[in-house]
Amino acid sequence: MARILGIDPGSTVTGFAVVEAGALPRSIIIDCIRLPRAAFAVRLGLIFERLSEIIEQYRPDEMAIEDVFVSRNASSALKLGQARGAAICAGAAKGLPVSEYTPTQIKQAIVGRGHADKTQIQHMVRMLLGVTTPLQADAADAAGVAVCHIHHSRSAARMKIAASTTGRRA
Amino acid sequence: MARILGIDPGSTVTGFAVVEAGALPRSIIIDCIRLPRAAFAVRLGLIFERLSEIIEQYRPDEMAIEDVFVSRNASSALKLGQARGAAICAGAAKGLPVSEYTPTQIKQAIVGRGHADKTQIQHMVRMLLGVTTPLQADAADAAGVAVCHIHHSRSAARMKIAASTTGRRA
Repeated sequence: MARILGIDPGSTVTGFAVVEAGALPRSIIIDCIRLPRAAFAVRLGLIFERLSEIIEQYRPDEMAIEDVFVSRNASSALKLGQARGAAICAGAAKGLPVSEYTPTQIKQAIVGRGHADKTQIQHMVRMLLGVTTPLQADAADAAGVAVCHIHHSRSAARMKIAASTTGRRA
Repeated sequence: MARILGIDPGSTVTGFAVVEAGALPRSIIIDCIRLPRAAFAVRLGLIFERLSEIIEQYRPDEMAIEDVFVSRNASSALKLGQARGAAICAGAAKGLPVSEYTPTQIKQAIVGRGHADKTQIQHMVRMLLGVTTPLQADAADAAGVAVCHIHHSRSAARMKIAASTTGRRA
């Protein structure tokens, strides 16, 4: 079964989740990395290191990350960008393919429509993965992008099968 | 002699320079990584990989990078942030201490004052490092931040010596 590492990057808190694909997706771990009040470069190094350890420990096959829509100012965008760059590098360094999904695609996969609030996402992620304990928002978002990737891979696989059985090219 | 890896990060071109400290700083390599037109995550992975190889090959002791002042829009800031995050991670993963300098500190170190244009920086970097060939702007900027770090480390060392010879605490 393929294991997906979902990431919700941030320079203060980075959410992560390892979800196993299957008839029902199964949560292996859903948690977050809380960064200390240190120099920015140190925090980026920590995001990279902790995610590298998580990849070593849980052996995911792929990484999925939110393709951020930037509505905030340039300074926040720069910070978020650096955290995102650090997270992607941890995956790239271990040879994981990295897929990106827009917030709308994630919401669509989790709650069935493109608009949903944080509470709804958290609720649905817990339902879909059978998690009984409350989830921190960043951790739930990380699990959300992992589940979104599983849905998309499944649809892509189905389309391939359909195309090959009808004799069309995939 | 300490070797400094200077970086001018960018998602299209990332400049890099390895400069050896000494009575006169000496250039080991000054060049840039040109990123292909690929998915953004792939480009970040390439920045990380290429810089990791450069660190393996030239064995710098420290990394220095420009502390970007964001004047552009949030979307460019996000891209630049990700490239910067990827570069910093390559250093952090190899255990290099990372120092950050503002554009003003770099100009001050290279041309003696806080305001200078690109051409002046390129000219002075070539003079300071005895480079006879023309330098690409991003490569020159990377060399500039490395030289800036050498100047700052030297001043810090001098202040330490002065403090210890006069019996004051460093």
